[in-house]
Amino acid sequence: MEPGSDAYEDILYTVSDGIALLTLNRPDRLNAWTQSMTRSVRRAIGEAAVDPGVRVIVITGAGRGFCAGADMGLLQDIGGESPTSRQQRAGNEDAGVELPNPSGIDVASHYRQRYGYFFATPKPIIAAINGPCAGLGLVVALYCDIRFAAADAKFTTSFSQRGLIAEHGISWLLPRLVGSALALDLLLSARKFDGIEAQRIGLVNRAYGSDVLLKETMAYARGLADTVSPRSMAVMKAQIHASPFQDFNTALALADTEMAKSFGTEDFREGVAHFVQKRAPRFTGR
Amino acid sequence: MEPGSDAYEDILYTVSDGIALLTLNRPDRLNAWTQSMTRSVRRAIGEAAVDPGVRVIVITGAGRGFCAGADMGLLQDIGGESPTSRQQRAGNEDAGVELPNPSGIDVASHYRQRYGYFFATPKPIIAAINGPCAGLGLVVALYCDIRFAAADAKFTTSFSQRGLIAEHGISWLLPRLVGSALALDLLLSARKFDGIEAQRIGLVNRAYGSDVLLKETMAYARGLADTVSPRSMAVMKAQIHASPFQDFNTALALADTEMAKSFGTEDFREGVAHFVQKRAPRFTGR
Amino acid sequence: MEPGSDAYEDILYTVSDGIALLTLNRPDRLNAWTQSMTRSVRRAIGEAAVDPGVRVIVITGAGRGFCAGADMGLLQDIGGESPTSRQQRAGNEDAGVELPNPSGIDVASHYRQRYGYFFATPKPIIAAINGPCAGLGLVVALYCDIRFAAADAKFTTSFSQRGLIAEHGISWLLPRLVGSALALDLLLSARKFDGIEAQRIGLVNRAYGSDVLLKETMAYARGLADTVSPRSMAVMKAQIHASPFQDFNTALALADTEMAKSFGTEDFREGVAHFVQKRAPRFTGR
Repeated sequence: MEPGSDAYEDILYTVSDGIALLTLNRPDRLNAWTQSMTRSVRRAIGEAAVDPGVRVIVITGAGRGFCAGADMGLLQDIGGESPTSRQQRAGNEDAGVELPNPSGIDVASHYRQRYGYFFATPKPIIAAINGPCAGLGLVVALYCDIRFAAADAKFTTSFSQRGLIAEHGISWLLPRLVGSALALDLLLSARKFDGIEAQRIGLVNRAYGSDVLLKETMAYARGLADTVSPRSMAVMKAQIHASPFQDFNTALALADTEMAKSFGTEDFREGVAHFVQKRAPRFTGR
Repeated sequence: MEPGSDAYEDILYTVSDGIALLTLNRPDRLNAWTQSMTRSVRRAIGEAAVDPGVRVIVITGAGRGFCAGADMGLLQDIGGESPTSRQQRAGNEDAGVELPNPSGIDVASHYRQRYGYFFATPKPIIAAINGPCAGLGLVVALYCDIRFAAADAKFTTSFSQRGLIAEHGISWLLPRLVGSALALDLLLSARKFDGIEAQRIGLVNRAYGSDVLLKETMAYARGLADTVSPRSMAVMKAQIHASPFQDFNTALALADTEMAKSFGTEDFREGVAHFVQKRAPRFTGR
Repeated sequence: MEPGSDAYEDILYTVSDGIALLTLNRPDRLNAWTQSMTRSVRRAIGEAAVDPGVRVIVITGAGRGFCAGADMGLLQDIGGESPTSRQQRAGNEDAGVELPNPSGIDVASHYRQRYGYFFATPKPIIAAINGPCAGLGLVVALYCDIRFAAADAKFTTSFSQRGLIAEHGISWLLPRLVGSALALDLLLSARKFDGIEAQRIGLVNRAYGSDVLLKETMAYARGLADTVSPRSMAVMKAQIHASPFQDFNTALALADTEMAKSFGTEDFREGVAHFVQKRAPRFTGR
């Protein structure tokens, strides 16, 4: 790491009790997304991925919003931009982060650009959507593995109101979560919807009262950090995100290979031992 | 257009305020589907697709039904039919409609027959399911982009009660909307279910009281016609319906190309301008 | 059949009124899965598949559980096991059952191992999940076509608490039912959830009070046995389980071929006749 790499522009990054908390931090702009954020989030997740003290990553927003979308200043400047700078702004440049992969299952090649590295990160990434979540902010949330939201958080795709299109992979991600008809409703109309509806249609895993959202999210993350095998989580995450690109026979063959490997691990021995001994587990991830 | 093409057999077709309303019109037969309807619906959607005064298409049924399925007279005649006439009856003959496609994304080739042209039409098609929706009527509804239903509308797949199979593409469309287990439940049992359940399982976007269904649908359609970019809608619709046939990397690359193109459009400039100026948008679709 | 094949180890198998009832039968162990069960279930489903007196198959658990997962004794022995015996334990050896397939649609080749033969069986398989359903027990339930559950039945994936991975195909099956985010939630956390939540997220078709679950399931199965065409069910089941591996054009072409074939069947004639004559159907499956 370079000097000063512990400071992140436009985000806060803290680690505590096995959980990395990544906070989008432009509260006066509802955390509208900047180029700095693209770089900072990438670097922070890369750091969390290799930090042995981190088992789970949580992303939330500072203040009353999650992320209101691409910063409007950015959007207004776009007209005269060169394809190269557009490409860089989109965050496709390599951040130089080498993601560990404890399974033999390739995920990274299926998600080569933009926030695809979220899927290739071998630790769960959970979004705690505390408030307005629009446009690019919604896209980023969809790249997370699990989403919790405040019941009154306001969501919108927003692109069609700007004359834009379904950007950054949302056209692929959204219909696979909620089906094509709900995806089209949300994309075409850009209507606002809240966390309750987001839960009902399967866009978020669960909605909580806004006063308890972060507490509930951290409790869930702590459950993952303390009670299940980090190795299991890494392999399972790879299995699920590779699964859209596999037929059943391939998925099963890979699962059998991973199952056989898991029988030889410390975590499997601990998994049986703590059950038989009726005590709390102490998984090492090995 | 040929002379007399403004008259449609078995359907009504009107355009008002940017919305084409297509009404299946055999109310004494619960709008049971005829060969004429196959041709009329195809021609009407083709006309709406190229009409610059149309931004949204709504399909509903006259009287108390949406569509009770294939006309039973038709079904009883089928035994002695030749493969050719069967093919024609199924509506695979080309109606000669050339569908415009403002995006560079190919949809039509993925949906070559039957009502596949619904997906290739660059304007949203919304079903307002006002009453009984059975067999072929349900199939047609599934080819629409968005579905609203009366809470008390009765649905049934019906095929298994006739000794038939999952016809006209429903075996591909239904599990992608509701999952394989619900698709099998509905197909195998041919049980009746209502609009409330249809909403719960994701088969329709929303259920409304039958007295307000059409009013709510038209208000939603008016929202699409008045407040979002028609160009955005056309590109997004192509993105979503092409998405089942794409891997993530391909979908993202196409989205990036379309995003770059959108930055050069009138609709993008208007999309930013009306937001900055805090006024209602006036999108042209260019 | 060999002599004594009417006795099944670790399960009960009865046929009555067109319904085969297969009961996992180790009630003192919450029906934890054994190697004998792997063989018995395979043989029983093979027998039901070819028995002309069976139209529907129901799987449930004896006593207060459905299936608590792989027998823990089994799991503790795994360490020193050879790959060959592991392979056999997994149930990949051929049971010698030839599954009939009245449609021209290939299903079996898409699901070659483990419980894939459930999907290739031309009769519906319904799980009645009466109680705890964990690990391998949940996997087996996911291979069924339709799932009903007791509202208070407890579910858990359980693998990550044992240091294991997403086994036996669940990484492919689960996200296609509930989406990737809910699949990851359930797999990573191994949290317990009940039949009500299972219904809400689409993991089971419906939850019932535990006192009426089996009665409701058998009533549903009787509906399938008595009121719809067995031939239709077989073709539809093949269509749905082949559908993930087809593009739309292929699915539609196969459906058209099967539709044409269905017009020549006894069941189609009966399907029209009982409707026109307003009487109960008497389908033969021919």
